[in-house]
Amino acid sequence: MTIACLDMEGVLLPEIWIGVSEKTGIKELSLTTRDISDYDKLMQYRIKILHEHNIKMADIENVISTLSPLDGAKEFLKRLQQKMQCIILSDTFYQFAMPLMKQLDYPTLFCHDLIIDEQGFVADYKLRMKDSKREAVKHFRALNFRTVATGDSYNDTTMLSEADAGILFRPPQRVIDEFPQFKVVTEYDDLYDAFVNAL
Amino acid sequence: MTIACLDMEGVLLPEIWIGVSEKTGIKELSLTTRDISDYDKLMQYRIKILHEHNIKMADIENVISTLSPLDGAKEFLKRLQQKMQCIILSDTFYQFAMPLMKQLDYPTLFCHDLIIDEQGFVADYKLRMKDSKREAVKHFRALNFRTVATGDSYNDTTMLSEADAGILFRPPQRVIDEFPQFKVVTEYDDLYDAFVNAL
Repeated sequence: MTIACLDMEGVLLPEIWIGVSEKTGIKELSLTTRDISDYDKLMQYRIKILHEHNIKMADIENVISTLSPLDGAKEFLKRLQQKMQCIILSDTFYQFAMPLMKQLDYPTLFCHDLIIDEQGFVADYKLRMKDSKREAVKHFRALNFRTVATGDSYNDTTMLSEADAGILFRPPQRVIDEFPQFKVVTEYDDLYDAFVNAL
Repeated sequence: MTIACLDMEGVLLPEIWIGVSEKTGIKELSLTTRDISDYDKLMQYRIKILHEHNIKMADIENVISTLSPLDGAKEFLKRLQQKMQCIILSDTFYQFAMPLMKQLDYPTLFCHDLIIDEQGFVADYKLRMKDSKREAVKHFRALNFRTVATGDSYNDTTMLSEADAGILFRPPQRVIDEFPQFKVVTEYDDLYDAFVNAL
């Protein structure tokens, strides 16, 4: 049996921080790992910016509650779930993702936790582990599953390399250029076919 | 973050083999790991009985398509999925379980595969690995998840022991007697509370 390992933002959901940036008008929050590849630096920067603009977790939740899965993502996931076990591997936080997981009928999600202080600000974050997407794939393989993984960005490439098959979904050109070993697809029907044909 | 590790039959679904036994009228198929604790002996016995009665995979699928989750199981799972990541760990087979997983909105399921021969008979089975429930819990813990597990029978007790917390759901008396270290619950509301309070 196969486990489909799915990146969340860019594959199933919009980039949450970009959504927060757009709704709050704070341009600095639109940076992602596509811009700053060092995840810790990016997160500490985001936390600083949120503090500076007096934005609390409740404000972020309000923004996230207005977001939806990408067009076609729910149908794609439902279809794939009939063929293989699907687990979402993400570097986001449960506090961000759960309202959106509801819209996808609660698929399993492996990600991280935010630490919220008494005033309701994001004080810090707690990574469950470093390189968590790749580590998850490793452990699924140790449990004798075949693994097929998809993602859109740099921070997915170690997961894609670790998996039995890796697929890039709507990646930026520089990721395509740097990782020519991965199949590239841009539509959900093609992504579904790539998963099924990798079996 | 916590992963809830849920046994399938007896916790969320009826015993599938018992369902097949009742619908086909073949009494020998009603034996489970509660009766023959050696799983391989039980499976080889089931395969022999199916052959003797000329029952093919398609016949079994017809029976399974008439089964439903246990009363209250779907609501329990939906509620728990809002609190933690839920993964079903079972010694059943994907070929049996998938029609029933649809009724639960496709939660993640770790189980095994049947091997079907050219005539459509169950020829053999392929365990993904030995003691697969416990191994899954081990690997979730290695991924820095807390784990809480529930099951109803002998074959769940190694999983319950491996988890940070173990809960017996509607177990037979002899399992209660033999494993007094585990909390015992019989209703879904209490099972939900036991999971949430174990956090």
